[in-house]
Amino acid sequence: MSNYQLQIEEIIEKIKEIDAHIVGLQFPEGLKIRATMVAKQIEDETGAIAVISGDPCFGACDVSDVDMKGMVDILVHFGHTPLPLEYEVPVLFLEAQFQLDVTSVINEALILLKDYKKIGLVTTTQHLQFLDEVTEILKNEGKNVVLKEGRGTRKAQVLGCNFSAIEDLSVDAFLYLGSGDFHPLGIKLSTHKPVIIADPYRNEVRTIDQFADRILRIRFAKITRAREAGRFGVIVSSKKGQQRMELAQSLRKMLQKKGKEAYIILLDDVSPELLMPFTDLDAFIITACPRIAIDDANMYKKPLLTPDELLIVLDEKKWEDYRIDEIRY
Amino acid sequence: MSNYQLQIEEIIEKIKEIDAHIVGLQFPEGLKIRATMVAKQIEDETGAIAVISGDPCFGACDVSDVDMKGMVDILVHFGHTPLPLEYEVPVLFLEAQFQLDVTSVINEALILLKDYKKIGLVTTTQHLQFLDEVTEILKNEGKNVVLKEGRGTRKAQVLGCNFSAIEDLSVDAFLYLGSGDFHPLGIKLSTHKPVIIADPYRNEVRTIDQFADRILRIRFAKITRAREAGRFGVIVSSKKGQQRMELAQSLRKMLQKKGKEAYIILLDDVSPELLMPFTDLDAFIITACPRIAIDDANMYKKPLLTPDELLIVLDEKKWEDYRIDEIRY
Repeated sequence: MSNYQLQIEEIIEKIKEIDAHIVGLQFPEGLKIRATMVAKQIEDETGAIAVISGDPCFGACDVSDVDMKGMVDILVHFGHTPLPLEYEVPVLFLEAQFQLDVTSVINEALILLKDYKKIGLVTTTQHLQFLDEVTEILKNEGKNVVLKEGRGTRKAQVLGCNFSAIEDLSVDAFLYLGSGDFHPLGIKLSTHKPVIIADPYRNEVRTIDQFADRILRIRFAKITRAREAGRFGVIVSSKKGQQRMELAQSLRKMLQKKGKEAYIILLDDVSPELLMPFTDLDAFIITACPRIAIDDANMYKKPLLTPDELLIVLDEKKWEDYRIDEIRY
Repeated sequence: MSNYQLQIEEIIEKIKEIDAHIVGLQFPEGLKIRATMVAKQIEDETGAIAVISGDPCFGACDVSDVDMKGMVDILVHFGHTPLPLEYEVPVLFLEAQFQLDVTSVINEALILLKDYKKIGLVTTTQHLQFLDEVTEILKNEGKNVVLKEGRGTRKAQVLGCNFSAIEDLSVDAFLYLGSGDFHPLGIKLSTHKPVIIADPYRNEVRTIDQFADRILRIRFAKITRAREAGRFGVIVSSKKGQQRMELAQSLRKMLQKKGKEAYIILLDDVSPELLMPFTDLDAFIITACPRIAIDDANMYKKPLLTPDELLIVLDEKKWEDYRIDEIRY
């Protein structure tokens, strides 16, 4: 954790500038452990009172501006780049850049990239500062490197629910710089192209293919089971950045036209426990965060599908055209 | 569940009257199982679309008006009496009355009440309609029955966090009509008088004394452990009906004066998982729902105390004067 750079001086300057008395602080899960330390520094250096958001936070889709309205003079949101949303309080987005050495892992990745000429380079917020360096290494090895800005994301940046930066890129393979399977899986399910992961934390390279295949098999099974469902719950998020009520209503109509029952359920954080009381529903469609259905699939006993997957259930789309659900602005 | 009466005709009439197109529905946990049935009836009979709140709901402190703002024309909140709060959308509160026979359990309770002359009668929303009947039975047995309206509650009605209807009542004992230990425990910790439970669901009578003693021992242990704490988290709720920011700030100052560190943490639903990232804090004070510290105590590893309990920790109040925390309006 200590390798994360959080420009706290910038916050302190801003607080003094606007003479803020109460400051909201919101951290993604991985940075929450530093919350009180950051709060203490801000309080000591500015005299302002810090209010730390303790709610789960997985993205800029989930800024606690509504909860902090009328409570804070400014809200500092760490670790995510802003989305084009209107906020109820002034929000300062502060990225957290991770300091590490990426050279060796990229060199390692070149082995897995040997059959590919045209490489789409892709990463997440905390590694954007390495793009030039990685591009340089790849070019020196004769690769053609392609990077594109997304809608609502920076150059070569993806979110778990926004892959517009790599959409329709004419490349042979993608090189993902970062850790975990979460983003590479999204890249794979969004493009169906080869995805090589270069993980500079574990200094490890691998492909996402096997993992993505397993996930796709699970999705196929869920879709198959949902074909038998007669009564659906259509979940809408109360989080501003995840709210797709119009989509939910159109899915509801579509279901009704096919002779199914459908009910709209509003939820803040979605969890299996909260769906349990709906004993008479057979399946759920989630218009909230697209990743819940995919990444938490084994937690849900009844089929929990994305809007796109519902189209396959209703024979409005072919399984062969399967794509991960995204929320774009 | 089928014994609950939910005046759905009243909702349908109201929807037609204001020509509502989208209707929010919010149910307490025990009534959620009927949500889709109610939604279907409303949709079929009015043509409006129902949006069911799936978030946890434990009281009128937690109305989903903020989440449904701009989304629904009216919100129907079931099972709780209104609190004197301002809501962001029109809210229709509909009580759920449970239909059952209380005569035999009250007759049974008279055995445990034999040494008491002056009886404070107390219950919850769903049994208010039995008050006259129970009073009649008690009077016929020569008891003096005392009932009082509370601040923000009806005559003889308590909430888990509001015992004003029985405050300073000069009675020998309380007779609680209803199920579970939750409300009787609150009555006991608020008055320290004998509490007899008449449970018409199980047709069972008992006292709360033993259970309350166990809870008090746990509270004493938590308070003792918190005396060693140097760093405190002071939890504030983002739920409108549970938000006590001023109290939190004054507790924070009090802690700081005693040489302790204190940080304000804003939370919607409070859970042990959400406090886990705050590894450097030794104890938490909760200004949100007063019952979380008491009723979920065994889920929290670090001491989680009510504001009143903090006063005991800081030697501002004596253990002998222990009272349950309440949120009054």
